[in-house]
Amino acid sequence: MKAISVLGSTGSIGTQTLEIAQECPKDFKVVALTAGKNLDLLIEQIKQHQPEVVAIADKDDLAELHQRLKNLANQNKSKQIPHLVAGSEGLNTAASWNTADLVVTGIVGCAGLLPTLAAIRAGKDIALANKETLIAAGPVVLPELKLSGSRLFPADSEHSAIFQCLQGTPWAENARLSTGIPTPGLRNIQLTASGGAFRDWPAEKLKNATVKDATSHPNWSMGKKITVDSATLMNKGLEVIEAHYLFGLDYEHIEIVIHPQSIIHSMIELADSSVLAQMGWPDMKLPILYAMSWPHRIETPWKRLNLPTIGQLTFSNPDKSKYPCLELAYDAGKASGTMPAVLNAANEEAVAQFLEEKIHFINIPKVIESTCEVHKKDLMSNPQLNDVIEVDNWARREVRSFVKRNSHSIALSTFRK
Amino acid sequence: MKAISVLGSTGSIGTQTLEIAQECPKDFKVVALTAGKNLDLLIEQIKQHQPEVVAIADKDDLAELHQRLKNLANQNKSKQIPHLVAGSEGLNTAASWNTADLVVTGIVGCAGLLPTLAAIRAGKDIALANKETLIAAGPVVLPELKLSGSRLFPADSEHSAIFQCLQGTPWAENARLSTGIPTPGLRNIQLTASGGAFRDWPAEKLKNATVKDATSHPNWSMGKKITVDSATLMNKGLEVIEAHYLFGLDYEHIEIVIHPQSIIHSMIELADSSVLAQMGWPDMKLPILYAMSWPHRIETPWKRLNLPTIGQLTFSNPDKSKYPCLELAYDAGKASGTMPAVLNAANEEAVAQFLEEKIHFINIPKVIESTCEVHKKDLMSNPQLNDVIEVDNWARREVRSFVKRNSHSIALSTFRK
Repeated sequence: MKAISVLGSTGSIGTQTLEIAQECPKDFKVVALTAGKNLDLLIEQIKQHQPEVVAIADKDDLAELHQRLKNLANQNKSKQIPHLVAGSEGLNTAASWNTADLVVTGIVGCAGLLPTLAAIRAGKDIALANKETLIAAGPVVLPELKLSGSRLFPADSEHSAIFQCLQGTPWAENARLSTGIPTPGLRNIQLTASGGAFRDWPAEKLKNATVKDATSHPNWSMGKKITVDSATLMNKGLEVIEAHYLFGLDYEHIEIVIHPQSIIHSMIELADSSVLAQMGWPDMKLPILYAMSWPHRIETPWKRLNLPTIGQLTFSNPDKSKYPCLELAYDAGKASGTMPAVLNAANEEAVAQFLEEKIHFINIPKVIESTCEVHKKDLMSNPQLNDVIEVDNWARREVRSFVKRNSHSIALSTFRK
Repeated sequence: MKAISVLGSTGSIGTQTLEIAQECPKDFKVVALTAGKNLDLLIEQIKQHQPEVVAIADKDDLAELHQRLKNLANQNKSKQIPHLVAGSEGLNTAASWNTADLVVTGIVGCAGLLPTLAAIRAGKDIALANKETLIAAGPVVLPELKLSGSRLFPADSEHSAIFQCLQGTPWAENARLSTGIPTPGLRNIQLTASGGAFRDWPAEKLKNATVKDATSHPNWSMGKKITVDSATLMNKGLEVIEAHYLFGLDYEHIEIVIHPQSIIHSMIELADSSVLAQMGWPDMKLPILYAMSWPHRIETPWKRLNLPTIGQLTFSNPDKSKYPCLELAYDAGKASGTMPAVLNAANEEAVAQFLEEKIHFINIPKVIESTCEVHKKDLMSNPQLNDVIEVDNWARREVRSFVKRNSHSIALSTFRK
């Protein structure tokens, strides 16, 4: 029986984690929940899972949450009111909660970074679904992991696939120590990419891409921001950076393969030329479960993969001219230090501007490139946590100001020389 | 540095093993060779690898081998004449040679069984390329493995694929103890099959299949017998039985998937529905190397797998009516005891009769089925080694006699009701 904390319990990762906990009551017990604004769902989750502590992001919601739980307790629908906390301190309290063995970090964006760090500092094992922890703050997080002995188990499908393929290597045996250190005999990692909403669009048609076009993912059902990241392939670029920090490989040993069916979730190539791949239906619950259950495999009634029914799996190389975000991500990764944090923040803000229809789809990479370019002179090689948060904020401001400066200009879609 | 014995050094597995030893001189040292009739090649191998002992199958060849090596030594082309032995005792001497760490068993057919057992009894680790060791003699070999602590590392591509995918599970950790015992969390094994020479032939056309048709394999370059086994899918049926003994799964958990490109060499399905696959070009050297190098991965300059170049991988279910050998193999496996030995021997002899054009291709399964049917009343559940050898001999005689009895009958191609 593993005691788990779920950070971001009302989000996509959080709700799926709780579904798993409900499906496997002998294996997992939920001891802590944290949520943002969705009080109704949070209260349902509290009724269902009876956690010991609950954190809510906004202190102003605390009184309402307390009152509603009290009413429920009076109606005997909830046995006991959990310990309630709020704000960023509250989040950290829940993230480092004493009785938890494993913390599932489902909070999206830089907001997830601080509670994840709190969990790491408390020596908790982490099921990592918050990308920013490594992408923006890799240089900060790796030494913290070493210090606390906290272990990172990737909970997104690509890195889980790599992690599953790496079982039986020293990397998996020493997960505690090995984040950021390459495993002997591992030559390359190949991350698969569906190719996103525009995989069948010719590059020249992308200038007509609407928000609706970009938010319709062919395989995975995800939030809008991440679906746009799929369409630009920035999601894959960010995963490359995450894989670099997780598995310790140089960027030239992390490759991307377009695989439209999203059945092979990623592959490793070993020194002797053998390739191992992990496969499954496109469903986040499997990687989340494995991050929770490692090193064990828990029996599930989930739909079995059936390759004869699928018939064929196809593969191609990504078209770099169609997906300029890829090269931006590799460049930022190689620049290292604070540059990946800038890339990530600039991308989040650029996508937000696109979703608000303030910039064209094809301008997303242009806005990011310009922001990274400006940051070059301020790049810090060995940033502290505050530096990461600062450049993150700066990059968002820079994107907004850049978009404002160019918003009325006809050159917005063509300002790149 | 691992000291290896190569049983069947002039055959396909043997020559590839020696190529590997030559490519990786820091990792492997050849201490023993055994060969059949090919003295010329054997002498070349002795010159190249300077083994400590050499066994030749036929005692009559011993004098000639000795004289030719002596002449070479006199010409200073070979430093020293190795210890020379011959006959079945000689084979066993080489197979259990004192200084060897690992024995690669490349002798085809039941002839490989006794020296493999000698190696097991001497506590050597085995790179297993001789199928009969487990298929015909599984019930004899499993207790011997337990007794001696000898470990079996599969050297054929499918079982190596499963073995590679199983790394990080208790099966791999305890390879010494676990042959025949299922690993916790392993739900299914999926063996891939190219579909052989007739994969694109409609079933009704098979009655016209010639020896030339049946011995042209689309992907793998192999001996004639095994290429015919590919065309009947009996090779896959035999691999199912081997997988049963190696990995300890019941037959209903060992499945076959037709995969014409032979890039995925096999897959495992875990309890949580995750599937792991091992991939590579169709080249026996990789599984042989891994059986030799386990648990390490040795750097090779071999051609990298490139999925975008391949473009697509396809999958389908095997057509049972087209491949009746499959069901025969599953039935023999489930009957267990001496039945798999009968199936294997009957198949070898039936294929020999086909290659001599004494029976039609479509009669291969019919001859095997009849032989297994006759054996039912004599089935031994817990055979000893002698029983296995006896039923093997009996099945061959039975097939020859059956073919003779039916050879002039017009019903030869249609004698199955």
